[in-house]
Order: sequence, then structure tokens, then C-alpha cells
Amino acid sequence: MSISHAADLAGALRALRVQPPLIQCLTNTVVQQWTANVLLAAGACPAMVDNPHEAAGFAAVADAVLINLGTPHDDTADAMKQAVLSATEHGRPWVLDPVAVGGLAWRTAIARDLLAHAPTIIRGNASEIAALAGGAGGRGTDATADAEAVLEQAKELARTSGAVIAISGPTDIVTDGHDDVRLNHGHVWLTKVTGAGCALGALVAAYATVSTPLIAALAATAHLTLAAESAAESANGPGTFAVHLLDAMTAMEPDDLAQGVVLR
Amino acid sequence: MSISHAADLAGALRALRVQPPLIQCLTNTVVQQWTANVLLAAGACPAMVDNPHEAAGFAAVADAVLINLGTPHDDTADAMKQAVLSATEHGRPWVLDPVAVGGLAWRTAIARDLLAHAPTIIRGNASEIAALAGGAGGRGTDATADAEAVLEQAKELARTSGAVIAISGPTDIVTDGHDDVRLNHGHVWLTKVTGAGCALGALVAAYATVSTPLIAALAATAHLTLAAESAAESANGPGTFAVHLLDAMTAMEPDDLAQGVVLR
Amino acid sequence: MSISHAADLAGALRALRVQPPLIQCLTNTVVQQWTANVLLAAGACPAMVDNPHEAAGFAAVADAVLINLGTPHDDTADAMKQAVLSATEHGRPWVLDPVAVGGLAWRTAIARDLLAHAPTIIRGNASEIAALAGGAGGRGTDATADAEAVLEQAKELARTSGAVIAISGPTDIVTDGHDDVRLNHGHVWLTKVTGAGCALGALVAAYATVSTPLIAALAATAHLTLAAESAAESANGPGTFAVHLLDAMTAMEPDDLAQGVVLR
Repeated sequence: MSISHAADLAGALRALRVQPPLIQCLTNTVVQQWTANVLLAAGACPAMVDNPHEAAGFAAVADAVLINLGTPHDDTADAMKQAVLSATEHGRPWVLDPVAVGGLAWRTAIARDLLAHAPTIIRGNASEIAALAGGAGGRGTDATADAEAVLEQAKELARTSGAVIAISGPTDIVTDGHDDVRLNHGHVWLTKVTGAGCALGALVAAYATVSTPLIAALAATAHLTLAAESAAESANGPGTFAVHLLDAMTAMEPDDLAQGVVLR
Repeated sequence: MSISHAADLAGALRALRVQPPLIQCLTNTVVQQWTANVLLAAGACPAMVDNPHEAAGFAAVADAVLINLGTPHDDTADAMKQAVLSATEHGRPWVLDPVAVGGLAWRTAIARDLLAHAPTIIRGNASEIAALAGGAGGRGTDATADAEAVLEQAKELARTSGAVIAISGPTDIVTDGHDDVRLNHGHVWLTKVTGAGCALGALVAAYATVSTPLIAALAATAHLTLAAESAAESANGPGTFAVHLLDAMTAMEPDDLAQGVVLR
Repeated sequence: MSISHAADLAGALRALRVQPPLIQCLTNTVVQQWTANVLLAAGACPAMVDNPHEAAGFAAVADAVLINLGTPHDDTADAMKQAVLSATEHGRPWVLDPVAVGGLAWRTAIARDLLAHAPTIIRGNASEIAALAGGAGGRGTDATADAEAVLEQAKELARTSGAVIAISGPTDIVTDGHDDVRLNHGHVWLTKVTGAGCALGALVAAYATVSTPLIAALAATAHLTLAAESAAESANGPGTFAVHLLDAMTAMEPDDLAQGVVLR
């Protein structure tokens, strides 16, 4: 893989807007509303079908599936497994967001089980990625590790799982196990809006319906973090920032992505 | 039924503000916060009591009940059934919002079962109403059918169920099975805020405590969609729009409703 | 206890910002997002670990635990009990928010059971506190009783439970069972934002990690209600108010607290 051209990201956004994909989100209850609004702002169509009776059937017709382990319960964990099996069977991309994996044994076991079913992309902060790769995990969603520090573990995880890995942090790194691409956009207020990372996972799933996993991870990250830079300019704090972020994501055009993003 | 006078809608809002009704919402977890804030903005008092241990008892003291099938789970579906039986027994109006019914078999069966217990009002988009009436459903909350196209099915559903039907879309249509009334207010950003339709269902329940089912559906729709027009004027995108919508719904006075609404 | 000095509140906020505490919130699904964003704005780190498999283990490493009974279900109620036992065992402060206790038998029994496990602080509106103390409860989160009217009951509850009691209302009263302190800040729009009181409960838990229970309840109340006064100045209604409130809570400095608060 060579470093992707910004034009590929613009093309992905263009495709997303032409045919809004239906994204099934089995995600934590804290961020369901925010995630849905971020997907709508980007141009996708969210559907939070997360019960065991309907998850598999819906995954067969959805365009992509997000699995986020933020607040798993017995029935939603069951639904996640079924959605993943159905997505895999029907050739749909699916994204794993291993929230707080490592420090919590139950969800770590769930994540490892799901990992065996070939996620298309895995998105997490550095400590979550390290924990999923076999290292020690953190206490929650507050990343204590640095993306660069876990990069070799992430690459190994990418090679063994077949997934593209997106490590979120002040610098975001995306790797397919061989090469890696960095983005250095965003704003510190993203860490003050609950679910910024969770929504990025959903956005990655949306982009995976219109591009390769690598381009999807890059385009989603660029879309969110460039919009964050724009939103911060007119915001007075994390409250107005989150609201303006939805406006900025809606206003983002393919040319804005292509001209604004720096990939290295 | 003749086409209602705008004055009836103004009277309903006046009554709502004088004695804020307590609305029990058994609704999807994506939109609980948004729904509660919309009810508060309109002048009602929300309570999301949705467990099987308390749902029936609370429905006996609440002023109206909303049943929204967006994210049903075994225990909330059980609670919904009990709340409906209690509401019916105690003469409370209740509203059915059959989210994504049609394409998903489990919730479709739940909706049909609840339909037998005389909902006061049914609110949904065109494909959901068509599916509940016996036709084919869509994939989610994204209406693919047009309200006019399903009007005859909706009228038949109104006659057989005894419910007033509110079909949401670019043009909203309310029918009691014999006559029908159209409203053509709103803004496209309502489709970019998750739960706009779900909150309308809750608002319909609130208005049903102070007026006839027909006036309730019209007043709720007018309150939300006229406020949307006002909110859009000062918004830069769906993020600021949603925030301003709460302000505009709060500021809406009975005279604004009477003077702004066009019923046809 | 003598009436605390405003300087103690400023010191608590200073400590909170130096070492952001991890607050485990087992709270209702309506306000999870809002609660997380309020904690982030104040300077704390939220984690909504609320399943029975992980609640106890997480409470052993979290800095404080919030138990809010807004939307209990079988599995979250189970998780709450386990989190409380673990918090007590590991010497972590925990806060009980008895939402709608009194009128609803199931959650009232849960609250009374938890009450036996020595909550550090109890936060509720007047009718909830009265109900927990043994009186009659209200229908929901809408306080019908006045804080002064239930103060003697609250003091008795504080003495028997060992908890500091924070009674929310137009005037907030905090008591340890012997003395009591009043704050008269805030804005009526706090009653139009769902979860304002619930978020205060979480904020009390955050402050309990850096100060005595009494100072924690006062500092949290002052932080939220002084920020509300500031937010209301630039808001046009409850929608913009809620957004500006997050900005104002973020901007609040220890000196602002010390200079703005009136304790009596």
C-alpha cells in the first residue's frame, strides 16, 4: 500500500452522498442519539436494531454493521454475535469498536470471540487496540497509551485478523498491517464530547460501504476531524462545539476533504 | 368531520400549558433524551417508565402513554403490552408509533398485537403505516413511500382500528378514516435530526390529553413543524437546527399556531 | 458543622481539575449522554458500566459510583446492587439518586435495599427525599413538594442513613442531619432540560472523590447552578441553554465558584 491520495477520500464522500447507506448500529446506549445524528450529518442512514430477534435479519439487508462494546448486556451481546455472523454470511462490512476492552473481562471475551469473525475494520484508542492485541488494557475510554506506542501491536493484530486498524488519538493512525498512514487533525474538545470516538466507528462503517477498508478509515477520520477544526472556530466550549460539529459535517464537501486533509 | 379550525389547535396548546400532562413514554433508547426535551419544550411532563414491574401501575396514573417500537427488547416489549392494557383499562389515550414495522417480523407481530387494543392515534411514516395496514414495509425509519400513496390504506386502517392515523412526510396527512387533513409545514432538516418523528409521536400523546384525537394529531404536527420553520431561519445546519427547535417549541404561543398553520 | 466557606468549594473544583476522577454511572438511559457530557464539562471522566457481569469489578477501580433509579430494569438493578457492594467494600464514595421513588413500588424497594448499604450522599427532589424517608412520593421527576417542607424528614434520613442529603429545588438544601446549608442559584430552564437533576447526582459523585460529602454536595450544586445563571444570559430557550450550560461548566474556574456562590 502506498500512501493514499486525498482524492480517494473525496471520492468516498461523493459516493456516500449519492447513495446513502443504511448502517445498523449495535452500540452503547450512551451514544446512540449522537451516533445517529453524526451518521445523518455525514450523509448515511442509521438504524439501531440491537435485539436478538431482529439483529441477524436486519444485518442481511443493512449495508454495513457497527459493533460497539460500550454498554453490553446479555441480550445486546447476543444480538451482536448474530449480526456479525449474518453480516459475514451476506458479505457486508462490519466494524468492531472494542470500548474499554482489556480492563473488563466479560467484554474482553466478547471482543475476542467477535474478532474471530473477520471484522473489516477495528477502531479504538491506543489502550483498547493494545488490549485487543493481547496487551494490558486501560480503565475506560480515556486513552492512556499513545498511538505510536502501540503501532507494532496494531500491525500484528491487523495481519492476524485481516482487519484494517484505526487507532484514535491526538494523532490518528490507520494501518493494514504493513503500511500505516497518519492524520493529525481534530481538536481537544473532541475528548470532551462523549461518543466522539464511538461515532467515528459508525462513520467508518458508513464509508466502508463505498470504498476499501483503508480508504474508509481514512475518509471517516478526516471527515470528522476536519469538521472538528471548523466547528471549534465558532464554538465557545464543548457544548456549542458538538452542535457546530454536526453542522460542519453536513457542510463538508468532497473538495473540502481533498484540500484539507494531510496524510503522512 | 369538517376541516378543523386553526382555533381548535390554539385551544389545545392553551390547555396543554395550563395543566402540563404527564406522558409515559415507552420509546426507543436512541431518542429518549430528545423526546423528553421536546415534551418539556411543548409544555408536557415526560416519564420514561418502561420496565415490566412498573409500566402498568404508572400507566394508571399517567395522563397518556406513548408506545414506540424503535428498539424493542424482551422486557420493554413486555412492559409495552402491560402499559397498553392498563391505559385502556383506565381510559387513558395511548399512541402507537410502529417504527420500522413491516421489514422486521418480530416487531411487526408486536405492533399487530398492540393494534388490537385500540390505540387512540397511530403515527408513522408512509411505509410504516402501509406495513401496519397489511402492505409491504420499508427497511427502517427512512420513508420510501409517499403519504398520498398510502392514504387509502391508512383510511382503512383507521376505520378498522378506530384510531386516528397521522402519516408523517414532506406533507403530513391526518385521517380518521373518513376525512383527511393535510399540513405542509416543516423543514428538510427534520429528516437529519434523529427522532424528529418519534418525538412527534410523544407530542401527539401529550395533545391527546387535552383534545380529540384528530385535533391532537393536527396540533402536535403543527406545533413541531411550524417551530421547525422558525428554527431553520437561524440555524446553520441540523445541529443548530435541533437546538433552536427546542427554543422555538418553547416560544410557540397559541396565537402563533392559529395564525401560522394552514390546514387543507 | 458550621456553614462552609466558599473557599472550600473552590478548593474542591481545583482538585477535580488536577486529577480527573473516573465516575462509574449506573443511571437511566434517558440521561446517559447528557450526564457523561456534564461530567466531562466539569472535569471528570464518565464510564457507564452497568451490566451485572462487570459492575462490581469496575466499581473496585472507579473513583466513585452513581446509582440513579430513573429507568431500572432487572439486569441494571442487579448491577446496581453489585456496584454498591463493591464500592462499599473498596471504600469508594457512592451516590444514590432515588428518581420517582415513592409512587412506584418496585424501585422504592430497590432504593430502600440500597439505602441499607451506606450511601455517601443522597440527591433528589423534595418528594423523592420525603418518599425515601418514609413519606408519600410523587408521580415522577416533577417535584411537587418544597425542600423546606421536607427538611426535617431529610435530616432524620441523614441521621439514620449516615448520608449527606442534597434536596434539589428552586432553593437547594444540603444537610448532614444536624445543620443545613442553602443555595439559591440556578434558572427555571434547568427544569426544562431533562436530566439536569440526574447530572447533578453524577457531579456530586465526582466531587465526593476530592472533598467531604458535605462540600461535595455544595460544590456540585454551586458549579451546576452558577453555570446555569451564566448560560441563561446568552440563551434563547431551553435548547440553547443546555448547550451553553456545558460551555459554562467547562469555563467555570475555582475563583468563579468562590466569588459567585452564596451559602446560607
